[in-house]
Amino acid sequence: MSIDYLKHLLRPSESKIVLMVMDGLGGLPVEPGGPTELEGASTPNMDRLAAEGTLGQTIPIRPGITPGSGPAHLSLFGYDPLVYDIGRGTLEAVGVGMKVSKGDVAARGNFSTVDDKGIITDRRAGRIPSDEAEKVVEKLKAVKVPGVETEVRHVKEYRFAVVMRGEGLDPEIEDTDPQITGVMPVPARAKLPKAEYTAGLFNQWIAQAQQIIRSEPKANGLTLRGFATHPGLASFMDVYGLRSACVAVYPMYRGVSQLVGMDIVNVVGETTQDEFAALARVWKDYDFFFVHIKKTDSKGEDGDFAGKTAFIETVDAAMPDLIKLKPDVLIITGDHSTPARLKVHSWHPVPFLLWAPATARPDDQTSFGERACARGGFGTISAMDTMPLALAHALRLNKYGA
Amino acid sequence: MSIDYLKHLLRPSESKIVLMVMDGLGGLPVEPGGPTELEGASTPNMDRLAAEGTLGQTIPIRPGITPGSGPAHLSLFGYDPLVYDIGRGTLEAVGVGMKVSKGDVAARGNFSTVDDKGIITDRRAGRIPSDEAEKVVEKLKAVKVPGVETEVRHVKEYRFAVVMRGEGLDPEIEDTDPQITGVMPVPARAKLPKAEYTAGLFNQWIAQAQQIIRSEPKANGLTLRGFATHPGLASFMDVYGLRSACVAVYPMYRGVSQLVGMDIVNVVGETTQDEFAALARVWKDYDFFFVHIKKTDSKGEDGDFAGKTAFIETVDAAMPDLIKLKPDVLIITGDHSTPARLKVHSWHPVPFLLWAPATARPDDQTSFGERACARGGFGTISAMDTMPLALAHALRLNKYGA
Repeated sequence: MSIDYLKHLLRPSESKIVLMVMDGLGGLPVEPGGPTELEGASTPNMDRLAAEGTLGQTIPIRPGITPGSGPAHLSLFGYDPLVYDIGRGTLEAVGVGMKVSKGDVAARGNFSTVDDKGIITDRRAGRIPSDEAEKVVEKLKAVKVPGVETEVRHVKEYRFAVVMRGEGLDPEIEDTDPQITGVMPVPARAKLPKAEYTAGLFNQWIAQAQQIIRSEPKANGLTLRGFATHPGLASFMDVYGLRSACVAVYPMYRGVSQLVGMDIVNVVGETTQDEFAALARVWKDYDFFFVHIKKTDSKGEDGDFAGKTAFIETVDAAMPDLIKLKPDVLIITGDHSTPARLKVHSWHPVPFLLWAPATARPDDQTSFGERACARGGFGTISAMDTMPLALAHALRLNKYGA
Repeated sequence: MSIDYLKHLLRPSESKIVLMVMDGLGGLPVEPGGPTELEGASTPNMDRLAAEGTLGQTIPIRPGITPGSGPAHLSLFGYDPLVYDIGRGTLEAVGVGMKVSKGDVAARGNFSTVDDKGIITDRRAGRIPSDEAEKVVEKLKAVKVPGVETEVRHVKEYRFAVVMRGEGLDPEIEDTDPQITGVMPVPARAKLPKAEYTAGLFNQWIAQAQQIIRSEPKANGLTLRGFATHPGLASFMDVYGLRSACVAVYPMYRGVSQLVGMDIVNVVGETTQDEFAALARVWKDYDFFFVHIKKTDSKGEDGDFAGKTAFIETVDAAMPDLIKLKPDVLIITGDHSTPARLKVHSWHPVPFLLWAPATARPDDQTSFGERACARGGFGTISAMDTMPLALAHALRLNKYGA
């Protein structure tokens, strides 16, 4: 894969790269012949960047495949998501801002309701509301297992995440969730001998936790699933030689960035302007900036075509704050499409704009939108080509071979 | 490859997919600046589908590689033809409508002329005409080998095919054709010990067959080549979860479809309208329909530019019969190009049109032709992307990862 040979081509540079990801950016028209959300938005700033830069469209995973957020971002960062699997426990933990390093073991937890014999009567604790479940998770923080550090955090409704940190841990452990009601949870069992010590530690954690929550009205039982560790991704520094920073409001994206070694920048507020302000504050300290903008996806999932269009316009209006920092390479793209018409992530190609005053080749496209991108100078490329193109346009790569 | 992970993403759906393959569809202009066969044809129905859907162009195998019909169809069906090899014996047998299942062994046969010592004097039996050779093949049906079932069928001129069915068969057998005249045919020899039993059975078949044809004027000898079995392709049901049907007039395409587990629909007549009528009759029974239209290729191979154009117009005129069935996804493409100007299969990209009222992203292309397809919204894709795109647009795939 690309990142294996790229590292031999790296050369020092002072250039700065911004990868701005508008989540779920790609869309579909709602009327025959009509514009998509992006095409319908008035985006004079992005249109100027489109006219000066090069457009294209990316395939997030493979043609026809709809990505989840984790795999879609891995792909943008240059790691093939069909090769690297983040693991459910790790994804859940980093999604709520927990740190999962190499050697840590993370699991996803579900509260359940059990009867007085410990038999599961409801695998989701009656879909207990988040505010109630949060209080139960708070109590679980009292659990202490000798020899390791454990951290527990609430996710949503009946779901939480646990991370265990210490020496000699291994994630090859079976789920404790029996997947059915009418039986007791199964103990954490090692799939391989090397994980037996870890399984024992998790069983200690579970036993203490059960004791603490036994009198809860709904969440009086629990199961753990998806035991996983850090997915073994090489860091952005190792692979690309980039001091890299993540500017994101949502924990999930901060988490995935942390897995590839990005520093997380504190954002005060949650608008695009707030994100650009945070970026400006650390501009001198990094070479590469991943800026994640969430609401394009949220509006798409709500089926709110007009809202998605309007939100894109607010992002465009904020662009001068970013442009005035004078990045050498600015990429504006999405991680996948979320057409308001479908209300879910989709497989459609994703608009891609690369602006690089010193190196971009213009392609006669003058606006940023799906149809223009399909005709753009990059053609149809893999999202995994994003980082090599960014490095190249930032003059950070030597030539390959003599 | 795609089909390995796709099966984990399948979700149930009532949606219906039609893959309509106009054999050898892609063409070339005969005059500088002029239209191709497809561009010159008046195709109001396909043009409307093009305007509403998404265009692209496919690479059948790899850029620059001209495919045979077998590999080209494997690719359209999602099986990499550089990985899966149908085997000459199997291709020849399924090409004349014989069934080759896992464990069967098929071989291609050549009649030859031998002298009174059994020495080959003509490896193709004087290119004996088909009507004469058919009669000789008819006599070979009397051959019976204990313990197995054998089937023999005429192919063309001096060529025929044999299929052996039974327990414990193995195709690892050397050709009996010495490739030169002046020597005797070699016996069927096992390449590996596990094929010795099968080689012995084929030698019995050959001995009986030689006895039967010894008095023929030209075809008084024979050789067998290309011993092969079912290529081990997983079925469309296993890989895509599709109940699939093949609507084709030519045995070769029915044969390849059978190798991937499609049911073969009986077609009364041989026009495109006849094929669409057959499709309509079984519409309720299947999820996926492969419709194969042969004459675009035949006209191309004849070098008949005007004839290919005229034939495409008859297909377009029949389209309303297909459209009124209301497929959720309709793909119109070719397996390869057969430009009348070249009179043979070629490596040029193949026009690709996907129409899906609920999910297609329009691309401002308004007619179905090579130039429009090269500018289409899918860009240039592999023919192997056809099935994932069909499944995605039919909403038959879950998202990959969380």
